[in-house]
Amino acid sequence: MQKPKIVKAKIVAETALFRIERLDLEFSNGVTAQYERMLGSERGAVLIVPMLDDDTVLLIREYAAGLHRYELALPKGKIEKDEDILVAANREIQEEVGYASNKLTHVNSLTLAPGYSGHTTHIVLATDLYTSTAEGDEPEEIEVVPWSIRELDALLMRDDFSEARSIAALYVIRDRLSR
Amino acid sequence: MQKPKIVKAKIVAETALFRIERLDLEFSNGVTAQYERMLGSERGAVLIVPMLDDDTVLLIREYAAGLHRYELALPKGKIEKDEDILVAANREIQEEVGYASNKLTHVNSLTLAPGYSGHTTHIVLATDLYTSTAEGDEPEEIEVVPWSIRELDALLMRDDFSEARSIAALYVIRDRLSR
Repeated sequence: MQKPKIVKAKIVAETALFRIERLDLEFSNGVTAQYERMLGSERGAVLIVPMLDDDTVLLIREYAAGLHRYELALPKGKIEKDEDILVAANREIQEEVGYASNKLTHVNSLTLAPGYSGHTTHIVLATDLYTSTAEGDEPEEIEVVPWSIRELDALLMRDDFSEARSIAALYVIRDRLSR
Repeated sequence: MQKPKIVKAKIVAETALFRIERLDLEFSNGVTAQYERMLGSERGAVLIVPMLDDDTVLLIREYAAGLHRYELALPKGKIEKDEDILVAANREIQEEVGYASNKLTHVNSLTLAPGYSGHTTHIVLATDLYTSTAEGDEPEEIEVVPWSIRELDALLMRDDFSEARSIAALYVIRDRLSR
């Protein structure tokens, strides 16, 4: 398929966290249309699957402003300037779960909403953990919740576990570990 | 955990597609912080897993402005005003894959990025399909790609399949169908 031509691109809104771009597109069949998209951070984010042992994954519970509730999910965070994916992953788990890892593997990369977002999240499997903490920028202490990776059905039934990236990553890693 | 108090909420940007809200929060430990979030559409979206038979799921390939490339994913769309989740799902698959369903099941509901987005997506399993098309608002024809739901590893290896919601939904449905 031939990609539509971007006839014009313009930033139409910019806030502390978000940058919205409006695109004037011309599709290969001649149809023109206006689209808006959220520009992602350049380096993207990491989402880590920290395995305490072959069965136990460490989830975190923290306040999620988008839903205004406490939410259970995998630890994650933005990659800093000049930071490697695996280095970012190891920093985040030290900040959020109190462990570092001797074995970090970049498993794959996910997108959030390709239709209107440029956001990319790199999934990193962290094994061979050891206790190590680092100071993050969290407003309050994060609760760490160990969970059996074989018990994903029970996790999905919870009202406070809903994030698509965490669900996708847990299934992918569960399949990988059971092979 | 006691939720932080929303001291002040203010819309700081609004475009054709996005609405950004800034929150002044006070956490239960007294820490104050400013957060931004993207408000989702009130009724949310549906993402459909249309099964042509016990093994074949129908994916679609369409232009994704967020990534400026063609992307493979499950069919999805916004729920319209006063529209039921299952009605929206049946409308979307008629518009995007050319089938309607006699059996629609709301399996669960996912969020995209709870930290900064209020977006909710309802996952609907559609079986007992029959040919039926409806006019959508797509700028060009959508390609329908049948795929074996047992072959998720091969799907994940593709460069044009990355959406977390589609990955999560396919794993959840595959597990459900294989039980």
